[in-house]
Amino acid sequence: MLKLYIGNKNYSSWSMRPWVLLRQAGIAFEEVMVRFDSFDAQSDFKRTLGPVSPTGKVPVLVDGDLVVWDTLAIAEYVAEQHPEHRLWPADRAARARARSVCAEMHSGFTALRSHCPMNIEAHLPDTGALIWRDKPAVRADVARLVAMWSELLQAHGGPLLFGDFSVADAYYAPVCMRLATYGLPVPPHIAEYVQRVQQLPSVKAWIDGALAEQDFLDFEEPYRLHRG
Amino acid sequence: MLKLYIGNKNYSSWSMRPWVLLRQAGIAFEEVMVRFDSFDAQSDFKRTLGPVSPTGKVPVLVDGDLVVWDTLAIAEYVAEQHPEHRLWPADRAARARARSVCAEMHSGFTALRSHCPMNIEAHLPDTGALIWRDKPAVRADVARLVAMWSELLQAHGGPLLFGDFSVADAYYAPVCMRLATYGLPVPPHIAEYVQRVQQLPSVKAWIDGALAEQDFLDFEEPYRLHRG
Repeated sequence: MLKLYIGNKNYSSWSMRPWVLLRQAGIAFEEVMVRFDSFDAQSDFKRTLGPVSPTGKVPVLVDGDLVVWDTLAIAEYVAEQHPEHRLWPADRAARARARSVCAEMHSGFTALRSHCPMNIEAHLPDTGALIWRDKPAVRADVARLVAMWSELLQAHGGPLLFGDFSVADAYYAPVCMRLATYGLPVPPHIAEYVQRVQQLPSVKAWIDGALAEQDFLDFEEPYRLHRG
Repeated sequence: MLKLYIGNKNYSSWSMRPWVLLRQAGIAFEEVMVRFDSFDAQSDFKRTLGPVSPTGKVPVLVDGDLVVWDTLAIAEYVAEQHPEHRLWPADRAARARARSVCAEMHSGFTALRSHCPMNIEAHLPDTGALIWRDKPAVRADVARLVAMWSELLQAHGGPLLFGDFSVADAYYAPVCMRLATYGLPVPPHIAEYVQRVQQLPSVKAWIDGALAEQDFLDFEEPYRLHRG
């Protein structure tokens, strides 16, 4: 069976993407959660991942002897192995656009990612309001998201970015969690998309897992001293 | 015909990847070079790219009505449209590994990318020696490259990362240029791979184009006051 190594569900946005993709598609896999104790060479995390993956990072997908060690490569591998799930849109042009928005996420949105780290259990609207006031790069990232999602939702008629569920929704699911945690302002039709993503069974299951962890990692918590 | 928008050949590492991919495969395309005058909203660069691409960045591939705006998405699109060129390895496991190393490049190697920006015409071994002495993160990035390339060259028997030319070689071609410009120390079998990449007809053609530009952009030149 496929084995997916992930980090803490509350914090690990990169782990969330392939987990949601596999779960939403109904593809069976074994989850191996490796807690983020630290990222030092001697951490339990690195000592566990080191023998599994050449980068020592999560997520990693293991399929027998094969190790696939990066989120986008995992998505392509799973989509290719399971064409029946149409994880990329069937239409050639839509598929190229879906890959473009995923690749854009893979290397971009750095201001949103650094200033608003994923923290599913936290409720930080005041922090979000300060970030929104003081960080024009975060406002620019959100403006790009709003433009992208608006165009896709209109072009494909919703309910998700390319109509039915696709890799693109899995890719942007952690972004939906950030918008919610930090209460960043978006137009109503975008807030509705965020809600629809949060209500996907796979995303709900991930959120439940994150809430159940009740873990607190200082180095993932720039805005809190403790939980709750 | 396909139309590929690129930036200055001397500096634009992201543009180099799909250009080399298309050219090495012998796929016809029209090149549109948009000079990096600046990245301000009012720059000629942004005013040219703005109407073409939703991100206003290069590279962008335009195929009739379809716009594909990110390097990895362009690679997937071209590979899918031209299966006869086997731009990804034919073997399923090798293909997954090739996608992993490309995705790793797409979001990683940030120290090497920020401290050793691509600058094909420049010869900066003294700068490289200082970087090597003072930047452990650059040494770590190069160590990872050496480990990755060594393993792939051994597993597939060379001459390129997956035997024959693939997307992975196009993805790492700009890295080869950086290693050469800054004279970063690598073992002999890695230096030989760098040379083989530089001798690919497509890479030679890109280098010739870079040398012919004779352009100098302050904001791409942290280490030089002028050319030569």
